[in-house]
Order: sequence, then C-alpha cells, then structure tokens
Amino acid sequence: MTGKYFLEDFAVGQVFATSKLQVDTDQIKSFAKQFDPQPYHLDEEAAQKSPFRGLAASGWHTAALTMRLLVEGDFKPAGGILGVGFDALSWPKPVRPGDELYAKSEILEVRPSKSRPDRGTIRVRTTTYNQNDEPVQEFTGNLLVPRRSSIAE
Amino acid sequence: MTGKYFLEDFAVGQVFATSKLQVDTDQIKSFAKQFDPQPYHLDEEAAQKSPFRGLAASGWHTAALTMRLLVEGDFKPAGGILGVGFDALSWPKPVRPGDELYAKSEILEVRPSKSRPDRGTIRVRTTTYNQNDEPVQEFTGNLLVPRRSSIAE
Repeated sequence: MTGKYFLEDFAVGQVFATSKLQVDTDQIKSFAKQFDPQPYHLDEEAAQKSPFRGLAASGWHTAALTMRLLVEGDFKPAGGILGVGFDALSWPKPVRPGDELYAKSEILEVRPSKSRPDRGTIRVRTTTYNQNDEPVQEFTGNLLVPRRSSIAE
Repeated sequence: MTGKYFLEDFAVGQVFATSKLQVDTDQIKSFAKQFDPQPYHLDEEAAQKSPFRGLAASGWHTAALTMRLLVEGDFKPAGGILGVGFDALSWPKPVRPGDELYAKSEILEVRPSKSRPDRGTIRVRTTTYNQNDEPVQEFTGNLLVPRRSSIAE
C-alpha cells in the first residue's frame, strides 16, 4: 500500500519498517552538547569510566533519530505521526558511534474514538535496532489517526 | 544540599526544580528538520491547518530540552542522570515559539538493588511547565543511582 493510512487502513499485526541511518561520534557529541551534556555522552575517556564503558548516545538522541526514521519510513498515518503519549520507553542497549539504526513498528490496537467519529487512536510498539539486530530502544505509544470519513471523498 | 546525591540522600517527596529556558521558532524548526520533519513542526501555515492550530515543537524536542534543564538543574544524582526507561511520557499541551520552560522532579520511590549492594534505583516524575505553569510534558521513569558505600570514603 502506498499513500497515507487512515484509521480504517490499520489492522492489528501490521508491521512497518524504516530505512537505515548511521550515527557517528560528532552527531552523538553535538546532540549531547545541546541537550544532554553529561560526560559519558561527550567524552570518550569519561565514558570509559562510566557504566556505559564507552561513548554512548543520549537516549533522547536515539528517540529523536527513531522519530526521523519513522517520518521517512513507510508508516504514514494520514495527518502525520502524532503521538499523544507513551506508556513504555526503554533503552535496553546503548547506541555507539558508527551504529546503523533502523526501526520496526507493529500495530497492537486500533480504536475508533467514542466521542469523535472523525478519528481514533492506534497503539503502536516501535523497536529500534542496531546493525546486529539488537534492540536499542523500545516504545509503545498511542497515536491520533483521522478516519477516512473525516475527509471529503 | 549541594554536590552529588547518592541513593542514601534521596527520599520520597523531595522535589527538585530547574532554571528556565526559552524556545524560539528557529530552534523548533531546526530540531524538526533534523529529527521530526513533519509540516506542523516546520511551517506556520501548515501548522495552522493541523490539530496543533499553529507551529508546535516536536514532543521529542520538548523531551530533549527537559533533559537539558535537568542536567543543568539541582537534581544531581551521583553518576549522572541515567534513565533505564520510562513507563509514562505524555505531552498534554504543545510547546509554542517563545515559550519559557522549566521542570520539577519529584522522587516517588527509592529502591536499593537486591542483587547489587553498590546501587539502586529511584522512581522520579518530572513535569515540564510553560510560562503559564501549564504542564507541557510529564514523564515518570527509573534512574540508576550509586550508593554512597560504592565509593571509597
């Protein structure tokens, strides 16, 4: 399927994959300088002595990169990827310089809104993997999606 | 209290506040270009027609800015702010150009590790507010914190 997905197009069990994206040392340090200036995200030597045992990307950097992968991937809810919140977000493994990331999103639930006939929510679990297919981030969240009936045909 | 907090220094009910930080249109668009290139984060006109009804920061931008506020604030766990995951993250209101953000973190639980005597976890709820004291982000997560006994006195 190409084009945008309305609520009616989603079904439990669908899986959407993204392309790949590589993250390097400069990007890790630059994000950390702006948003998460802690030694293990900024400095190789300090990172060696930290629980990460080596330079690691901020978890929020991994989250932001995952968002970019999603926006550029096949997962195209009509109206955009509009998260209203998450109820699980974890970083099982650190992201390292040189890692190549991709993500898969699985539809867990599709719920028409009871009060608003023009929309609904989908519950999605997105897992981000590195080049060894090890999960580096997992989150489960709810996204707002318009119904096809919400637009003039 | 100044200096770093070990597990023994945290107690349920403690609240830590951050300083303030203003976010402008350029920052919102620049983050979106890099990490969340969707029309309502990039373009005022498109944003007017979206559910946001005006330019809004990516939720991940709000999350990243909150991390910066935390790292620069009074909340200083020894070993850094090291999240192992979150079980609630929501964005109750959009962040707009010109908004001035600050955050408060409340300690909900303090748990020594059963298997590792040198550490434990704290459960923290961090709420980010705008200049009208409206919550724009809330998350509850678990952080790793070393015990004082883990270091040579």
